[in-house]
Amino acid sequence: MRLMMFVVFLGCWEVGMADTLADAPGTASAPTYAVWPIGWVRKDGERTSIEIEPRYQPALLGLEAGARIWVLYWFDRHDTPEQRAILLVHPRGDPANPLRGVFATRAPVRPNLIALSRCQVLAVRGTAIEIDGIDAFAGTPVLDLKPE
Amino acid sequence: MRLMMFVVFLGCWEVGMADTLADAPGTASAPTYAVWPIGWVRKDGERTSIEIEPRYQPALLGLEAGARIWVLYWFDRHDTPEQRAILLVHPRGDPANPLRGVFATRAPVRPNLIALSRCQVLAVRGTAIEIDGIDAFAGTPVLDLKPE
Repeated sequence: MRLMMFVVFLGCWEVGMADTLADAPGTASAPTYAVWPIGWVRKDGERTSIEIEPRYQPALLGLEAGARIWVLYWFDRHDTPEQRAILLVHPRGDPANPLRGVFATRAPVRPNLIALSRCQVLAVRGTAIEIDGIDAFAGTPVLDLKPE
Repeated sequence: MRLMMFVVFLGCWEVGMADTLADAPGTASAPTYAVWPIGWVRKDGERTSIEIEPRYQPALLGLEAGARIWVLYWFDRHDTPEQRAILLVHPRGDPANPLRGVFATRAPVRPNLIALSRCQVLAVRGTAIEIDGIDAFAGTPVLDLKPE
């Protein structure tokens, strides 16, 4: 998510509101789904870990040091209707880069603010999964973990 | 998602309700986030494509044939509170396989029903992205696309 520091949104297109009412999110034709944190990114000096909510600890059974996992997390610092309506960005925030659609970039603004990082598990201790690092701020909500 | 046909849930643990009320999803301490389809999986004979909602078409700018992308989609056939509470599964539904936590498997039941597949883009025509295939049913809601 350090990426966000370099992303400047110039000339972005936004979703028109008037012409999308019929299939706006939450209507019958466009359902919405609720997701919630199953844990949080923690940083402690050089150490990075994912602290799992205690009620989800059983879901870690079999996850071991050395595993490579996908961490899905939420770009919570961009969680505004305006940023979720941005469809075009200048990659890396450089106006010299031609506009690209957000689905052709890893920009942290997009309709669904799901981020994806591959990490290596260094240790699992109770509800704490120590990882080799992640490009996300401390306190970032984590949505899912999957083996690679 | 063909995987779901092989997944039988025996001896699964579920999230206790009584002891999680304080930090249940949707409370102040555990926020929920809304996600919604940005498109849908389509199958037409041998062809597989992702049909993007028309209002999101600008977000495809720069996505071209040959690209390898991550497709994030929703395991909509498992979207019940009961299935979202399953934390342990027998991998591949085989009781001979020891129970594993869902975060150590790719099982289509998990707290947040987000699926992840890597696909190759064969063509982009308007709102239709033809891909080489995806292990998801026709009609599956797609949440996000990202370059690999």
